[in-house]
Amino acid sequence: MSVTAAKGFTASGIAAGIKENGNPDLALVVNNGPKLAAAGVFTSNRVKAAPVLWSEQVLKGGLVSAVVLNSGGANACTGPKGFQDTHATAEKVAEVLGQNAGEIAVASTGLIGLLLPMDKLLPGVEQAAAQLSEHGGEKAAIAIKTTDSVHKTSVVTGDGWTVGGMAKGAGMLAPGLATMLVVLTTDADVESDVLDRALRAATRTTFDRVDSDGCMSTNDTVLLLASGASQVTPGEAEFAEAVRKVCDDLGQQLIRDAEGASKDIKVEVVNAASEDDAVEVGRSIARNNLLKCAIHGEDPNWGRVLSAIGTTRAAFEPDQLNVAINGVWVCKNGGVGEDRDKVDMRYREVHIVADLAAGAETATIWTNDLTADYVHENSAYSS
Amino acid sequence: MSVTAAKGFTASGIAAGIKENGNPDLALVVNNGPKLAAAGVFTSNRVKAAPVLWSEQVLKGGLVSAVVLNSGGANACTGPKGFQDTHATAEKVAEVLGQNAGEIAVASTGLIGLLLPMDKLLPGVEQAAAQLSEHGGEKAAIAIKTTDSVHKTSVVTGDGWTVGGMAKGAGMLAPGLATMLVVLTTDADVESDVLDRALRAATRTTFDRVDSDGCMSTNDTVLLLASGASQVTPGEAEFAEAVRKVCDDLGQQLIRDAEGASKDIKVEVVNAASEDDAVEVGRSIARNNLLKCAIHGEDPNWGRVLSAIGTTRAAFEPDQLNVAINGVWVCKNGGVGEDRDKVDMRYREVHIVADLAAGAETATIWTNDLTADYVHENSAYSS
Repeated sequence: MSVTAAKGFTASGIAAGIKENGNPDLALVVNNGPKLAAAGVFTSNRVKAAPVLWSEQVLKGGLVSAVVLNSGGANACTGPKGFQDTHATAEKVAEVLGQNAGEIAVASTGLIGLLLPMDKLLPGVEQAAAQLSEHGGEKAAIAIKTTDSVHKTSVVTGDGWTVGGMAKGAGMLAPGLATMLVVLTTDADVESDVLDRALRAATRTTFDRVDSDGCMSTNDTVLLLASGASQVTPGEAEFAEAVRKVCDDLGQQLIRDAEGASKDIKVEVVNAASEDDAVEVGRSIARNNLLKCAIHGEDPNWGRVLSAIGTTRAAFEPDQLNVAINGVWVCKNGGVGEDRDKVDMRYREVHIVADLAAGAETATIWTNDLTADYVHENSAYSS
Repeated sequence: MSVTAAKGFTASGIAAGIKENGNPDLALVVNNGPKLAAAGVFTSNRVKAAPVLWSEQVLKGGLVSAVVLNSGGANACTGPKGFQDTHATAEKVAEVLGQNAGEIAVASTGLIGLLLPMDKLLPGVEQAAAQLSEHGGEKAAIAIKTTDSVHKTSVVTGDGWTVGGMAKGAGMLAPGLATMLVVLTTDADVESDVLDRALRAATRTTFDRVDSDGCMSTNDTVLLLASGASQVTPGEAEFAEAVRKVCDDLGQQLIRDAEGASKDIKVEVVNAASEDDAVEVGRSIARNNLLKCAIHGEDPNWGRVLSAIGTTRAAFEPDQLNVAINGVWVCKNGGVGEDRDKVDMRYREVHIVADLAAGAETATIWTNDLTADYVHENSAYSS
C-alpha cells in the first residue's frame, strides 16, 4: 500500500543500474493532485548531501509534485558536481512529467563521497515514469532499500482519508533524524502549514527518538505530501495523530531491522524534572556501548545504566535513582534492588525504565544492542 | 619501577581473595615522607563510587600518607554500607601503619553494584602492609589490574628527582577521566598546590583525551603523591612537564591495551577556531561507531569522518573540510580528494587528521576501533 494507499498518488520502483548488483535502486512518487501541498524535515547534520540542500529549497515553496529517490549512492560530500547532478535529476523528472523542476524533491541514500552514475540514473527516470501506477507503492518502497533486510510501509486511515508511507533505514540511525528516507502521502485536503506542524510534531517524538547507533546521517529526509483527492479536511489534531501513528510505526520498523541487532531496547525515562532531561538521559543510556554489549549478552547490568545517567546534566540525586529491566527493579535508591537473576532477557524486546525521582516528565528512546554482526556489517560496507 | 621509582615510597601487591580466581587484588602505596603532599583528580561522573567520595574529602586536606587500592569490585552504587566499607578500609590502613585515617586515600575498580568482601579485604590490608617494600611498585601495579592484559608503569627522571606511576584501565575509557586508577609518586620537594596545578594540567591533555569507548566510569581516580625525599625542588614548569610525560605515557599504554581493540587511532584536529572546537570535533570522530567499525575493516571511510564532524557546533564550512588518513588526503574541500586506495591501513596505528580550516588551534584524541572482540568481552564481563 505504502505511498499509494492515499488517493491521488502514483509510484514506481525500478532497477536503473546504480547498484552494481542489479537490485531496484530508483523510486518515483507523483502527486496527481488536485493539491500539491507538502512539508519536509531534514537531517540536522551540518554536512548535508546535495539532495538535502536541493529539497530544503523546494520545500520552502510548500509545493511538491513528485519525489525521486535513489539508493546505491548518497550524493553527499560530492561538491558542486554533486549538486548539479541533483539539479539535473529534478529537471529530468520535470521534463518527463511536464512539471516544474522547482517542485520536484530529490532524495538519495548509500555510500558518502561517490558521484552518482548519471548515465544510468537519467534513463532510469524515464523508465520509472513509464511504470507509474496506483499500485506502485510497494515497488517504490523496495527500490529505496540499502542494507535494509525488508522494505517498510505503513498506512493509517481516517474517515474518508488516508495517510500512508514508506521508509528505508537500517544503520546510521540517530536523532536529527534517524538515517533514513521517508515519504508519507495523504489524500486529506490540508494546507502546507498544517502538514508542516503535523510532521514536525510527529518526527520529534518518533524518528527523532530512534537512536540505533548514535550516528547521524548526511541524507535524512522525511517528506509529507497531500493530494487533497479525498476532498475531506480532517480536524488538525486527528490528522496530526494519524501522521504520528504512521511515523511511530515506521520508526519501530527501522529499529527492528537495525544492522546486526539481536535486541530492540526501549529506554523509558520517568519522573524527570523536564522532557529535555528525560531525552538527554534516555539518549545517554541508549548510546552507552558497554550497556549495549551487556544487553546483547542478556546481562541486566544496571551499573552501566547508572554510569550513563551520571554523565548527564539532568536533575537527579544519585541515591534516589531506580532502574527496572524487564519489570524487575534491579536498582533501588542508587544501589542494589531486586534480585537480578529474576530478570528474563531471553526475548528480543528489552524494556529499561530509569526513574530519576526528580519530577513528572517522561520520554522514550528506542535503540538496539551492540553485536559482533553490527561490527562485521559496518566493517565491510564500502569494500 | 612504578610508584617506588621515586625515593620515599614503599608499595606492595597481594592476593586478598577479593577476586574469585585468586589473582592479586590489593595494592598499598605508602609515602614515608618527609613530606606528605598530594593532589587528586576524580571522575566527573555524577554517580561516584564510595572510594571516590571518600578520597575527594581526603584530598581536600592536601595530605596523603598512603593509598590502598583494590581490584575485583568497584564499590560503586553500594549505598551507605559501601561508604562504611571504604571508611573501614581507610581506618584499617591507618591502624596498621600508625597513621591518620583522614590521610588515607582509597580506590576501587571492578564490577558496579557489589559490596566488597570485607572479611577478605581487611586481613588483606595487614598482609599488604607486612610486604611493603622499596621494590614493591611492580607488584602494586599488577594487583590493580582488572581486564588489563598487562600492567602499566612509567618513570621520568629530572635532575636529582623522579616522577613514577602506575595505571590500570582497559575498558570504559572516556574523558573525565578515562576509566582507570592511576597513582603517581615523586620525591621532588613540592607543595600540594604545585602538585595540583601540574596534575590538572597534565590530565587535561592526556587521560582526558583518551576516549576508547565513550563510556565514563564511576571510579576514575588519579593521585599524585610527593615525599620530598630527594630534597630537590625543581622549577614548576619542568616538574609539570615531567608529570605530563608520565601521564601521556600511561595514557598511551591504556589505549594500546583497550579491550578487544585491533587498531589504535590518533584523531588529530587541526586549524580549529578554538581548542574547545578541536576537542569537540575530535571526540565526535572518536566516538563514531560506524567509523570505528570501518577502521577495524581497514576501510578509509572519510565520509563517516565528515558525518561525525557535521554533528558538532564547531566553526567550519562543509566545503572547506579536509581529511587525511595515514597521510593521504582522501577528502579535500568537503569532497573526494586523493585516491583512497593509496591509504595503507595494515598496521595497528591509524592517524586521522581533520582539518577544519577555521583557525589555528589543535587537539588530539586517542581512541580504538570497534571490534567483535570488544562486543564479546563486554557481553560476558559480569557473567
